[in-house]
Amino acid sequence: MKALVVVCDGLADRPVKTLGRRTPLEAADTPHLDELAERGITGIVDPVAPGIRAGSDTSHLAILGYDPCKVYTGRGPFEAAGMGIELREGDIAWRCNFATVDKNLVVEDRRAGRIEDTSELIDALRSIRLEGVEVKLASLAYRCALVFRGKGLSHMVSDTDPHATGVKVHPAQPLDNSAEARRTAQLLEEFSKRAHEILEKHEVNTRRRKHGLPPANYLLARGAGVVPTLEDFHRRYRMRGACIATTAIIKGIARLAGMKVIEAEKDYIARAKQALLALEDVDFLLMNIKEADEAGHDHSPERKVEVIEAIDAMVGEFLDFAEENYVVVMSDHTTPCSVGDHTGDVVPVLIAGPEVRTDEVTQFNERACAKGGLNRIRGMDIMPILLDLLNKSEKFGA
Amino acid sequence: MKALVVVCDGLADRPVKTLGRRTPLEAADTPHLDELAERGITGIVDPVAPGIRAGSDTSHLAILGYDPCKVYTGRGPFEAAGMGIELREGDIAWRCNFATVDKNLVVEDRRAGRIEDTSELIDALRSIRLEGVEVKLASLAYRCALVFRGKGLSHMVSDTDPHATGVKVHPAQPLDNSAEARRTAQLLEEFSKRAHEILEKHEVNTRRRKHGLPPANYLLARGAGVVPTLEDFHRRYRMRGACIATTAIIKGIARLAGMKVIEAEKDYIARAKQALLALEDVDFLLMNIKEADEAGHDHSPERKVEVIEAIDAMVGEFLDFAEENYVVVMSDHTTPCSVGDHTGDVVPVLIAGPEVRTDEVTQFNERACAKGGLNRIRGMDIMPILLDLLNKSEKFGA
Repeated sequence: MKALVVVCDGLADRPVKTLGRRTPLEAADTPHLDELAERGITGIVDPVAPGIRAGSDTSHLAILGYDPCKVYTGRGPFEAAGMGIELREGDIAWRCNFATVDKNLVVEDRRAGRIEDTSELIDALRSIRLEGVEVKLASLAYRCALVFRGKGLSHMVSDTDPHATGVKVHPAQPLDNSAEARRTAQLLEEFSKRAHEILEKHEVNTRRRKHGLPPANYLLARGAGVVPTLEDFHRRYRMRGACIATTAIIKGIARLAGMKVIEAEKDYIARAKQALLALEDVDFLLMNIKEADEAGHDHSPERKVEVIEAIDAMVGEFLDFAEENYVVVMSDHTTPCSVGDHTGDVVPVLIAGPEVRTDEVTQFNERACAKGGLNRIRGMDIMPILLDLLNKSEKFGA
Repeated sequence: MKALVVVCDGLADRPVKTLGRRTPLEAADTPHLDELAERGITGIVDPVAPGIRAGSDTSHLAILGYDPCKVYTGRGPFEAAGMGIELREGDIAWRCNFATVDKNLVVEDRRAGRIEDTSELIDALRSIRLEGVEVKLASLAYRCALVFRGKGLSHMVSDTDPHATGVKVHPAQPLDNSAEARRTAQLLEEFSKRAHEILEKHEVNTRRRKHGLPPANYLLARGAGVVPTLEDFHRRYRMRGACIATTAIIKGIARLAGMKVIEAEKDYIARAKQALLALEDVDFLLMNIKEADEAGHDHSPERKVEVIEAIDAMVGEFLDFAEENYVVVMSDHTTPCSVGDHTGDVVPVLIAGPEVRTDEVTQFNERACAKGGLNRIRGMDIMPILLDLLNKSEKFGA
């Protein structure tokens, strides 16, 4: 028996007026999800704890059984791992954006016109040397990861990213009174200044200016975190694990947990085939499906309904698999179209497979699943429940 | 958007034979509570944890998001704050009763004939000086609060109140082996003895004896607790908070949390108007409605039904408010009329407001709400869930 966990990012929502007070998941036509709900057991999940607004990172950590309250100090490490930087426990990592600033360091574009190729710029930045610290960099278009490795560092450093345009770049500041935080803030300031000097006069940016494109002349850092040790997934669960995803942060979590990482296909049916193929080699597959979250952030219930129906078609490919194996479908957090950001509402979950105690719920959505046999559980409960169904748990007691 | 939390003290009950095996809340006619249940999401709450018999104090602390397991050591501090004593972290406080004892210190009346004016007696007691300790006192009729301020004190001291009549006053005894507990017990003994001497010959009591009234000649102390620091409500939640209550202990909790405290009107409709007026100035209002608990303590299901119907009329005034804001109605603990004291049963809760995921529950009572969309939560979950609905939560993760 194997396990497939399909996490539909930001799938859950609140009732939407224009959908007749239904959520997008309630409004969408989802025959396959409903079939799994009918064949399975359903419930609602607090990704972290009741009312807590989980990020995709903290929620995925919890779903994989790694307590985010213990291992998560910021998104940086997971972004950096997702972008392929080899990390060590204790490294300090940031998620950065290549941005456009004016002469006074006022941010004009937080993504530098969504610049596509930053490889030359990253190469140039690799020349920066800081006292007593090894610097590591990786980028994917305007997204970038920055890592400091060395002794006496701290993640308790504020963002230089002001998270807005028309505002001056923020100074990196220590967030506690430790010498480590002060030193790390100073190092980040120094790095940012030298990076700006290098980027400002780099020929890539000269060319961009010539073509009327905003120059990628600043690295805005945010989400400082210290790289944790995640116990190896295989060692912890005695299952070979893999992850199919598109976003760096989810890939980073999987990579830090020692799971195989597979870049998701764009097409949903192709993705399903990818998953079934991957499951020939591994025992456990986590799929992150990003698109519903994006529709939520874009305040678009109509788009979210479309995405959900595409996900439903994809899930149709798993109906046979769920006869002899376990399939979990859930959301990692709620991204209401009304809010355009994550909220702390519970999310629906279904578990289908040979030996679940089925309930009377026949639809997969927020309100139907609230009546399910799992009742209300937490993200950290998913792996123990799944391991138990797979008969892979250790007994506690005699 | 604002939030109103109506906590109906001791509202919840167990099925009552004389009410046809219904609870008072099931038996009462509650069209407004039912309307809010229908418009909202419902559930059941363990005020502290399953089966734990919460006091009103520990439950209200949990509902306000202050972990009673961390901040609560006894009722004394909350009573003292509620009676208006200015407290500092580390003060030791007791709830006391003016009582009547005979020559052998046997308790004849634990409330000294419910004596109404104790202000002269309290003034006389203020003359007591203890070595190395500042003594503070306040009273409200037979109820009194006693505070010791100083170094080397402990709350680990037994009650001098025997909680019964016909029994001798108990000696204050240390409850652990610390020097602080031994010293505090000695100081309480000394204070009690000197208080008895002063009260015994006070002219107020001479007059009472003359009129055949029991003298208020002893202060029975109970519920020693150390004053905790509750993080300021406004700082913690970025909401201005207020509390409408009648009982000192609830006012004390609100006061220690830095909330505005408003004495509740007697009439229920007047109280509703008070609440709506208060909500013009604050973002969050907690209302404690005491009367159902009293009916429970008095073993009177009929009286409880009457109180509930009066509460329902009051809640009717909040129906419009709940269109654009969030209203929570719940009980802080169960006070079954059969038991006459608090029990650890779950209590019903409803949350009504613009974006809740409604459920199919159309009645507000213990058994109907057990089928609600919130499923089973805890007292400490209320604030996070509410903050999330108000879109005031910080995100944990990215």
